[in-house]
Amino acid sequence: MKYRILIEYDGSGFCGWQRQQGQPSVQETLERALAVALRAPVQVIGAGRTDSGVHARGQVAHFAAPDLLDVRRVLKSVNALTPPSVAVLALAPAHDDFHARFDAIRRRYHYHVSCQPVALARRFRYRLPFAIDFCVMNTAAAYLVRKQHFGAFCLHRSAMQNKVCDVTRATWVREDRPSLWRFEVEADRFLHGMVRAMVGTLLEVGRGRRAPTDVVRVLDSRDRRQAGPAAPAHGLVLESVHYREIKKTY
Amino acid sequence: MKYRILIEYDGSGFCGWQRQQGQPSVQETLERALAVALRAPVQVIGAGRTDSGVHARGQVAHFAAPDLLDVRRVLKSVNALTPPSVAVLALAPAHDDFHARFDAIRRRYHYHVSCQPVALARRFRYRLPFAIDFCVMNTAAAYLVRKQHFGAFCLHRSAMQNKVCDVTRATWVREDRPSLWRFEVEADRFLHGMVRAMVGTLLEVGRGRRAPTDVVRVLDSRDRRQAGPAAPAHGLVLESVHYREIKKTY
Repeated sequence: MKYRILIEYDGSGFCGWQRQQGQPSVQETLERALAVALRAPVQVIGAGRTDSGVHARGQVAHFAAPDLLDVRRVLKSVNALTPPSVAVLALAPAHDDFHARFDAIRRRYHYHVSCQPVALARRFRYRLPFAIDFCVMNTAAAYLVRKQHFGAFCLHRSAMQNKVCDVTRATWVREDRPSLWRFEVEADRFLHGMVRAMVGTLLEVGRGRRAPTDVVRVLDSRDRRQAGPAAPAHGLVLESVHYREIKKTY
Repeated sequence: MKYRILIEYDGSGFCGWQRQQGQPSVQETLERALAVALRAPVQVIGAGRTDSGVHARGQVAHFAAPDLLDVRRVLKSVNALTPPSVAVLALAPAHDDFHARFDAIRRRYHYHVSCQPVALARRFRYRLPFAIDFCVMNTAAAYLVRKQHFGAFCLHRSAMQNKVCDVTRATWVREDRPSLWRFEVEADRFLHGMVRAMVGTLLEVGRGRRAPTDVVRVLDSRDRRQAGPAAPAHGLVLESVHYREIKKTY
C-alpha cells in the first residue's frame, strides 16, 4: 500500500531534505519515526530535495507500507515521534504508481525578506543589509517567467542533465507590513540552488548593481558565474507541490 | 530629549517585558543595549507589559536621552547590541511629555492557533489539541466587543484598580491556510492576562463545552473563576499600539 504525506519543517537544524551520512536530514527523521509507527523499515521519497537550512510548509512525500494503515493513528504517532521542527500535516492513501517526485507537475517556493531587523520570524526571513527597490526587482523578475535553459541559476556540482525549466510565476509581493516582502516563484521543476541564485541576482538588481535586463543576458549565458551569489538558505520555504490528478495543492 | 522606539521581540526566552530581579526581561535587555549605545544609564518605559513568553511585533516604548541622538547610528548600534530575539524597528524623537504607556489610546493583540501540527511557526502559534468550531467562537467573541468591567478576564493577583476596558474588536480570522486562524482583539487598555483568558474561554465555546452566550454570564460575574483557563502564552503577540497625535500605528 502506498501513502503520501504532507510535511512542514523548520530546516534550521537539518542538512537538507535528503539523507546524508552522519548528518540529520528531514528524510531520515521521517523514516525513523515511520519505522517505529509502522514497525517496519520505510523509505520516504520527497517531491523536492531542499538544501541545508531551507524550510518547507508543503513538502510532499510517499512511502510504501506493509499493510493497510489506520491513517489517524499513524499520523498521531508519527507526529509524537518526530522533533518539533518536523510536522506531518496529512497522511492519505495514494495510487500504487504514485511518485511524489516524478508525478509533481509544479512546485512553489517563497523567499522571505525584511528591510528592517527581524526578531519573531528571524528563522525564516532574510534581513536585507542594504536598501532595495522592489519595483525594479519585479521588472527583472518578469524576464524569468519563461520556459528556458536555467543553467545560469544551477549549482556547478549539480548532476542534473536537463536544465530546461518552465517558470510560470516569479514576482515580489508585499506582505502584511511595509518592510516585509517575499519572492514567489513557481515552475514545473527547479535546478539545484536555483531559487537562491535567482533571489541573489534579483537583489543585485534591486540595489542598483545590475540593470533589470541583465537577467536576460545571465539566462542566455547558461553560466552560473554570470548570476549573483546565492541568497541565504534560511529565507527559503518550499511552499507547495502540485499534482495533476487532484485539484487541491495536496 | 525624549525618544520613542518601536520594538519586535520573540518572548520565548524572557520573563516578560518588565524588569524582574534575576530574570531576563525585554525591558532590561533594551536598557542595557541603550546604556552602551548612549554611554549613559537609560530607563525604558513600554506601552504594554507583556507576560512571560508573550511576543511583540509592535511594542512601543520611550526613554529620555542625555543629548540629541544620531538616530540612525543609535538604531544600528542598539540592534547590534541586543540578542537576535529583540529588534528595534524604529527610533524617533518624541515630545517632552510623551509617555508610551499613558498616551496609548488603543492596543492590538493577535493570538495565533493552528488546527494541524506546526513546525515553522511553532514558537508563536498554539497547536490546538482538539477540534474547534470557529463560527461559534465568533458568535461568542461578538459579546466581548463592549465597554465594560472585564474583571472576569483579569488575573486575581493583579493590582489594577480600574477594570473597565473598551474593547473595539474581538474576532477570529482565517490566515493563509485553512488550518491557521488568529484572534484579533483591540481595546483602549488590557488587564493582566486578559487576552489569554478571553482566548481560553472562547476555545471552550469552540469545542462545545460552553454556549456562546455564556460569555455574557462570565463577563457579568466579574469573577475570574467563571472564565476558562488561560491559553498558552506563546500564541500571543502584541501587534501594535496606537496614539492620538500621529496617524500611523507608530
